[in-house]
Amino acid sequence: MAREAKPHRSGEFDLIAKYFAPLAAAAPGALALTDDAALIQVPTGQELVVSSDALVASVHFRSDDSPDLVARKALRVNLSDLAAMGAAPVGYTLATMLPRDIEESWIAAFAAGLAADQKAFGLSLLGGDTTATPGPLSLTVTIFGLVPAGRALLRRGARPGDLVAVSGTIGDGALGLDAASGALAGLSAEDADFLAGRYRLPQPRLALGQALRGIASAALDISDGLVADLGHIAQGSGVGMRLRVASIPLSPAAARAVARDGTRRGRILAGGDDYELALTISPENSTKLAGIAEATAVPITVIGEVVAGQGVRVADEAGREIGLPAGGYAHF
Amino acid sequence: MAREAKPHRSGEFDLIAKYFAPLAAAAPGALALTDDAALIQVPTGQELVVSSDALVASVHFRSDDSPDLVARKALRVNLSDLAAMGAAPVGYTLATMLPRDIEESWIAAFAAGLAADQKAFGLSLLGGDTTATPGPLSLTVTIFGLVPAGRALLRRGARPGDLVAVSGTIGDGALGLDAASGALAGLSAEDADFLAGRYRLPQPRLALGQALRGIASAALDISDGLVADLGHIAQGSGVGMRLRVASIPLSPAAARAVARDGTRRGRILAGGDDYELALTISPENSTKLAGIAEATAVPITVIGEVVAGQGVRVADEAGREIGLPAGGYAHF
Repeated sequence: MAREAKPHRSGEFDLIAKYFAPLAAAAPGALALTDDAALIQVPTGQELVVSSDALVASVHFRSDDSPDLVARKALRVNLSDLAAMGAAPVGYTLATMLPRDIEESWIAAFAAGLAADQKAFGLSLLGGDTTATPGPLSLTVTIFGLVPAGRALLRRGARPGDLVAVSGTIGDGALGLDAASGALAGLSAEDADFLAGRYRLPQPRLALGQALRGIASAALDISDGLVADLGHIAQGSGVGMRLRVASIPLSPAAARAVARDGTRRGRILAGGDDYELALTISPENSTKLAGIAEATAVPITVIGEVVAGQGVRVADEAGREIGLPAGGYAHF
Repeated sequence: MAREAKPHRSGEFDLIAKYFAPLAAAAPGALALTDDAALIQVPTGQELVVSSDALVASVHFRSDDSPDLVARKALRVNLSDLAAMGAAPVGYTLATMLPRDIEESWIAAFAAGLAADQKAFGLSLLGGDTTATPGPLSLTVTIFGLVPAGRALLRRGARPGDLVAVSGTIGDGALGLDAASGALAGLSAEDADFLAGRYRLPQPRLALGQALRGIASAALDISDGLVADLGHIAQGSGVGMRLRVASIPLSPAAARAVARDGTRRGRILAGGDDYELALTISPENSTKLAGIAEATAVPITVIGEVVAGQGVRVADEAGREIGLPAGGYAHF
């Protein structure tokens, strides 16, 4: 869109042609990024799943983070939303708002990161927009997936008596952010690296999400914090939950971090950035969970139960309720 | 997504619930903006059309612009992309990156503008993201439309011998930007208001775009500038074009502005921001254009021809070629 009185020679089209068009080459509907819009075919019996996330330098990532990792994390947090719906990825659009003094090498490395994860997760760039900003580098990824019509995993299906379970290990993301910013004293270099890596490059649980269709009664991905996100299921389903802190699966590194400083337990419960799946499941379906965990090679751990009422309560090892901050992380 | 070590009390969920969830109430697939993603049904025989635009305060709009108009223009520039593809609008996702000191009244007026144009154009908010930024207010709108499968209007179908035509009047947007910023001396207040209004609130040509399916050989919306955008059709189709400057339709206000200062003709040809449709059409279909213009109440004017070769050349009243800046507006 033209907004300024003084047109100046393009870099926008050059950037798109050089770095972004190759990312769209495998998708005919992207029309080589040279048309007004992209086309997406949705097969009969499927519906499209759409999620959008904005990422801002200095808010969602550090300005000196590797552009390769910024790109891959931008895709992965969106892929995690598809996983939480039980959807298979198809493609994405990308809006990039770039400072005028950005180095072309940054864009090249960013595009290489996108290419790597496109290949890893089977999706293509479909379209987008590239513009300048006087502010921090900002990105919006809008991702598209397919799910059999009517079978998406939602947040609203949990019922009293259901079990509450999570994939993988919880708290690594938040502790990893602390480790990456030097705020996690006393850890071995190996543990700090492991946790920081979990923060920097989450693993979207796509195969698990798809396997849970028709099995889980509700699901989401843990981005705001375990308790806050389970609160979203509780609120959406009109139920409460009781969790046992001793059941929450920790990585060895996170367990050592908490053993060294018990206040870090708050980061496990409320820290966010896990991008693991949390789900509820009827007890009669629970035996299927072990098979799904084995088939997808992702550990699944039951951490509590759905109850009538509202709110998410967490009991410590002695059965006493743990006080929690109201709500999880929020941007305002 | 959690990124900071110190969680603080939500405004994000409150803002979404108060101002954005009502915009999604009519779309069941939006899941009340409380799930990980939205669902879009695409009827058999249709395909989805997707376009994404980023808008940054001080780049794409002025920080003191009315939030109502910012909202409506953000939707309309995207609706114009759907029009250019011959698609009917369905919905959109919205990523808002808001400065922390933003007034809630700004958000309320912004949401009211979205509501007004949702009603005017028949679409719903489907999802999105709200986050903070230390930079200027920024928005990404990703819009969705439907088109019968295989019948979208593309840029690549123009053939030598086709006529080149445009809807409405050209140049009002760029001259309107000049008028709004006080850079257009000697105009009557009425003319300045008319042009500024055309800049601030473009009219997406949705009915026209849909009527042109199967009739036009290529189409796009004019956002970068008439000649630059026709250059995109020429390049996409592997053809050239010859335009007659005297045939380009001007509003009375734009005609008076050019009569007063002939150098303003450059803004007509290269200024952009028209959001009119430009199209090519085989001469045997050209008689249908008058009927389409009448049915959609949008004037359509033939301004030149498609020729073999490449490039877009513009002839003045005496048939001499007019020199043009290389390319249209670009953001870098």
